Amino acid sequence: MESLPKLELLKKEIWNFPFCLFFAILSLIMEVFILGTGGMMPLPGRHLTSVLLRREGDQFLFDCGEGTQVSLRKLNLKWKKITTIFISHTHADHITGLPGILMLSSQVERTEPLRIIGPPKIREYVETSRNVLDMYVNYEIHVQEIQEPEKPQLVYEDEALTVKAVPLRHSRVCVGYVLEEKKRPGVFYPEKARAAGVPCGPLWSRLQNGEAVTLEDGRKIEPGAVVGSPRKGRKFSFVTDTAFQPSLAGQVKGSDLFICEGMFERALADSAREKKHLTSSQAASIASKAGGIGKMGLIHYSPRYTERELKLLLQEAREIFPDTFLCRDRMKIELPPHSN
Amino acid sequence: MESLPKLELLKKEIWNFPFCLFFAILSLIMEVFILGTGGMMPLPGRHLTSVLLRREGDQFLFDCGEGTQVSLRKLNLKWKKITTIFISHTHADHITGLPGILMLSSQVERTEPLRIIGPPKIREYVETSRNVLDMYVNYEIHVQEIQEPEKPQLVYEDEALTVKAVPLRHSRVCVGYVLEEKKRPGVFYPEKARAAGVPCGPLWSRLQNGEAVTLEDGRKIEPGAVVGSPRKGRKFSFVTDTAFQPSLAGQVKGSDLFICEGMFERALADSAREKKHLTSSQAASIASKAGGIGKMGLIHYSPRYTERELKLLLQEAREIFPDTFLCRDRMKIELPPHSN
Repeated sequence: MESLPKLELLKKEIWNFPFCLFFAILSLIMEVFILGTGGMMPLPGRHLTSVLLRREGDQFLFDCGEGTQVSLRKLNLKWKKITTIFISHTHADHITGLPGILMLSSQVERTEPLRIIGPPKIREYVETSRNVLDMYVNYEIHVQEIQEPEKPQLVYEDEALTVKAVPLRHSRVCVGYVLEEKKRPGVFYPEKARAAGVPCGPLWSRLQNGEAVTLEDGRKIEPGAVVGSPRKGRKFSFVTDTAFQPSLAGQVKGSDLFICEGMFERALADSAREKKHLTSSQAASIASKAGGIGKMGLIHYSPRYTERELKLLLQEAREIFPDTFLCRDRMKIELPPHSN
Repeated sequence: MESLPKLELLKKEIWNFPFCLFFAILSLIMEVFILGTGGMMPLPGRHLTSVLLRREGDQFLFDCGEGTQVSLRKLNLKWKKITTIFISHTHADHITGLPGILMLSSQVERTEPLRIIGPPKIREYVETSRNVLDMYVNYEIHVQEIQEPEKPQLVYEDEALTVKAVPLRHSRVCVGYVLEEKKRPGVFYPEKARAAGVPCGPLWSRLQNGEAVTLEDGRKIEPGAVVGSPRKGRKFSFVTDTAFQPSLAGQVKGSDLFICEGMFERALADSAREKKHLTSSQAASIASKAGGIGKMGLIHYSPRYTERELKLLLQEAREIFPDTFLCRDRMKIELPPHSN
């Protein structure tokens, strides 16, 4: 091994190690922001149901009703970092915030395309809005309509995660979304790497990424010698608006965070059934049946309930699924990575 | 004249007089509510530009951007009392609140039709929104497109007032609106009526409405004997978005309240010209040139200004037109009737 001067070695360490660490830390961060919790109409203090998931700086938006851009701003979330918008269905309260967000494009620089995914009619909505409202859009918009939305299907995939659309039963075609991280590399043990004589630097990254490396003395080090077994990815589910459908349990099973409509109290189950919405108890019974749910956040509240009155929805849900909480506007939920 | 028992006379007074008075008071009330003051995008604490004028219980809405329904609710204004919505132009920040407001129809009973007036494309916007968003609307919507919007023209008339559209110069077809009350009957002098022997009751109303009446003793009383000369109606103008256009002065002349875009400070006049918007100084020079303006309220502020920074726009405008004020979200302005 050619001996580098000490200063060069130090530089190498400085350049490699902090970057590995930086990216490793970034990939750990998954945060969910509740942009709004209301159903049907926005209220003072309660934006329409919309959720943003941020992972490694990428932002995925779920639904976009009137006012979502204001909520993004309140949380200091940059709309230009949104790579994909998933729309559950084309009812006004889930989608009419879209033109405003697209219009912001004329105010900031954006080079990356924006992907909009949703059930049939989403393309017509985006296109007629752009046309009638004469919007100046200086970046690409890829609209992806979900074909056969009555079947669960993969609608998005990148190197880190997948998103599946799952069919819901509403007064118009509607889907929920299940986002799943792919398995992540196992825990890296620096002390084991040092003991094996692997110098801190690029070889560490390669080992962590599951690659065997050969040292300068000819020894081959397998990743298993310095890295734990791959870790389970995180799972996030977003379900609104739907009639009660116990089969949803299979789709959302094992979600670290299950965001689910809980529009009404149990006493209004008939009204919920008629309007094809869920009571909070029904949401809880889906969570309970599913198994492996970390926690369930109720959302899409009927405007009939004040913020205080939502406690009733929570109580009724907790009787069935104790790990339930009430989503509130501007709430932030961190999803820590799994350790194995 | 047949003599009525005292009780009967009293009843007659009770039944007639309070009603005359009640309607007389109602017709005096004209209030303007500032629903939002922002241009381009809604901000936390600043809704998009929209103004509601209420007269005798009827409500006229001017522009309807994303979030207008929330602002209506904050001011406790009932959307179902809105009889007509006037739209300046079909840019997203002036119109995308419309579907949400139309959607509310499924939540409350409404029997009266809703009139929507605006430049060409307004019909396409309403129709595509209804179609794509599958809106349930249980009342009639009359959309009235302004033909030849480059010419000032009457677009609305009822027994009490008229509304004219006036051409503006913007990046898309855009109009301002000038609402004018018709002349109101003169002041009624009860003491003169009593002195002339006219009994309190329906005859008073007929005289106040300009009708001569014949008493039971055969004498004919002309309205001029008990009623002052007709009083000037009130005038309200709403102008946004437009490049500087001094000829607007002639249209808004004599407005008791002139709500006018003042988007930028003077130093940004080039940017204003390029984007076809007004500086506050330009708004003031229109008001000054017009003559007879009671007061001018600036509106449609650029999001670059915080609420405090708007003072600059006010100062610059007041140098030219002192009776200027800054519109603020949820402000209410009463327009008292003219006394002659």
